[in-house]
Amino acid sequence: MELTADLAIGVFDSGVGGLTVLDELLARLPAEDFLYFGDTAWFPYGEKGDDQLRARAEEISRWLLGQGVKLIVIACNTATAAAAEHLQRVLEVPVIGVMTPEAHAAVLTTRNRRVGLLATEATVRSGSYARMVRAHDAGVELVSVPCPLLAPAIQSGDPFDERIMEMVREYTAPLREAGVDTVILGCTHYPMVERLLRRSLPGVTLITSGEELAREVHDSLRRRDLLRATGTEGDYRFACSGDPAAFRELGSRFLQMPLGVVEQVLGGAPERAVG
Amino acid sequence: MELTADLAIGVFDSGVGGLTVLDELLARLPAEDFLYFGDTAWFPYGEKGDDQLRARAEEISRWLLGQGVKLIVIACNTATAAAAEHLQRVLEVPVIGVMTPEAHAAVLTTRNRRVGLLATEATVRSGSYARMVRAHDAGVELVSVPCPLLAPAIQSGDPFDERIMEMVREYTAPLREAGVDTVILGCTHYPMVERLLRRSLPGVTLITSGEELAREVHDSLRRRDLLRATGTEGDYRFACSGDPAAFRELGSRFLQMPLGVVEQVLGGAPERAVG
Repeated sequence: MELTADLAIGVFDSGVGGLTVLDELLARLPAEDFLYFGDTAWFPYGEKGDDQLRARAEEISRWLLGQGVKLIVIACNTATAAAAEHLQRVLEVPVIGVMTPEAHAAVLTTRNRRVGLLATEATVRSGSYARMVRAHDAGVELVSVPCPLLAPAIQSGDPFDERIMEMVREYTAPLREAGVDTVILGCTHYPMVERLLRRSLPGVTLITSGEELAREVHDSLRRRDLLRATGTEGDYRFACSGDPAAFRELGSRFLQMPLGVVEQVLGGAPERAVG
Repeated sequence: MELTADLAIGVFDSGVGGLTVLDELLARLPAEDFLYFGDTAWFPYGEKGDDQLRARAEEISRWLLGQGVKLIVIACNTATAAAAEHLQRVLEVPVIGVMTPEAHAAVLTTRNRRVGLLATEATVRSGSYARMVRAHDAGVELVSVPCPLLAPAIQSGDPFDERIMEMVREYTAPLREAGVDTVILGCTHYPMVERLLRRSLPGVTLITSGEELAREVHDSLRRRDLLRATGTEGDYRFACSGDPAAFRELGSRFLQMPLGVVEQVLGGAPERAVG
C-alpha cells in the first residue's frame, strides 16, 4: 500500500482516556483527518492477557487500515506495552505508542536529574518508563508512584471533587519529598486533573503523553513528507466497540468538545472477539 | 553547580571527525559558545580498551566542566559506546552522545521500513544502532555495511579522488540492492563525502549524527530554559591533546573554516595520562 498525505491518522485506546492524546494531536496537526477508536466493550485492558491484547490490537489496527490511515497511534499504556512491537512488525504503516516519547522528553527537560512518574500499578510494575529513561540518560533517577485509584476516580467523578484533590495531594507527596523537577503523567487519564497536579507540584514541569506523542507524530509525518498542506481544517470521526451513547457522553468531557456521531464497530465480548 | 544559559557547550572527539558535528551545532545554535576538544594524542580510540576510554572521557569532561560548560556532546561513536552511560552517571551536566538521535531520526524517516547503516567495523559489530532502531520501531529492518577503509581515506586524502569514489560505490552497493530508503551515516567522518554518497544512493535520505545531535541539543537546552538569547553571535574555542598545528590544518578542512588559535591540553601518551 502506498501511503499518501491525504490519508487519516488512526488512534486507538481501551476507552476515552486516549481522547486527551487526540486533543493534543488536533491542536498540533489541525489540517489532518483523525479516526479514533475506543475499545469500550473490552475496557479495562489491564485485566486482559498480553496474547489476547496483541490479537485485539491487531484486529483494531486492521480495521483502521481498512478505513484508510497512514499512521497508527496507540494512545494507551497497557496496549503499548503489550502490542506495540507486534504491530510494528506486522503492519505496513508506522505505529507510534506512548512511553518512549514522554521518557525522552523528561530526560531532555530535567535540570536536577530527578524525574517523577505517576502511573497505574501495572505501568509502574512493568518498569518500561525506568528502562527508557535510563536508555536516554543513565544519570537520571526515576521516582515512580503507583496511583491505583486515580484513573477510575477521574473516569467516574467530577474532576474537582474533594476526594480527587485529596488523592492527588497524597500521590504527589513522595515526589515533593524526592525533590523531582519533572514529572511524567504516565496515564492518559491524568491530564484531566492537570490543574490539580500543578497546584500540588509547584515549580515542577509536567510531561504528558499527548503533547510528546503529537510532537513525535508531527515529526514522523514531516520527515516522510506525509503531512497535509496547512490552511485547511481536518475532519475527525469516532468509533467504539461498546455503547455509542455512553462513549459520546463520557468522551465529550475528555475531549472538551462534542463528539457528534459515534459509530459502533468490532463489538462483542472479549471471548467472542478473540475466539 | 547551577547551570546557566551563559555557559558554553562542550564537545569532544578522538580527533577532527567531531568537527562535522560542531559544524551542525554552529548552524543550529549560532548564539551559543562552544569549546571543542580533539583528543589527537590518543587518536584512534578504536584501539583502546573500554575502561581506558571511560577514564579518559571522564578526564576530558572534567576539564571541559572546569572551563565552564552547561552540556557535553560526545561527537564520537567509539567514545559514546564506551563512556556515555558512565559520564551520565558521574557528571552533573547533561551528556548527549551520538547513535540514539540518528537511530530515532531514521525510524521517523523511513517509508519502506528498510534503513541502511554505513559505519566502522567496530560500530557495526557493537550492534548499538540495530538495538536502538528496534527499540523505536520493531518493524524496521537495518542493513549494516562495515566500511573499514573509508574514515582513514577521508582523513588522509582528497575527498574527491578516484579511490574514495570507488570505495563509496562499493560500500553503498549492498544498500542499493537491499532497497533501503534511508541511510544512517554512522561515523562523523562521512559527512565529508556526503555529495559522493548522495550520488551513489539516489532517492535515499541520508541521516547524519551532526544534524540529529544538533536538534537534540537544541531541544534539551530549550526545555531546560538554558538557551542563550538569539541575536548575538557565539564564540568558539579549540583545544587538542596532540600537535596544535596539525589539528588546526586538518580541522579547518573538516569544519570548512579557519580554526584560529588551538590550545594544547591534557597531552601525553595514553599510558601516562591514564596511569
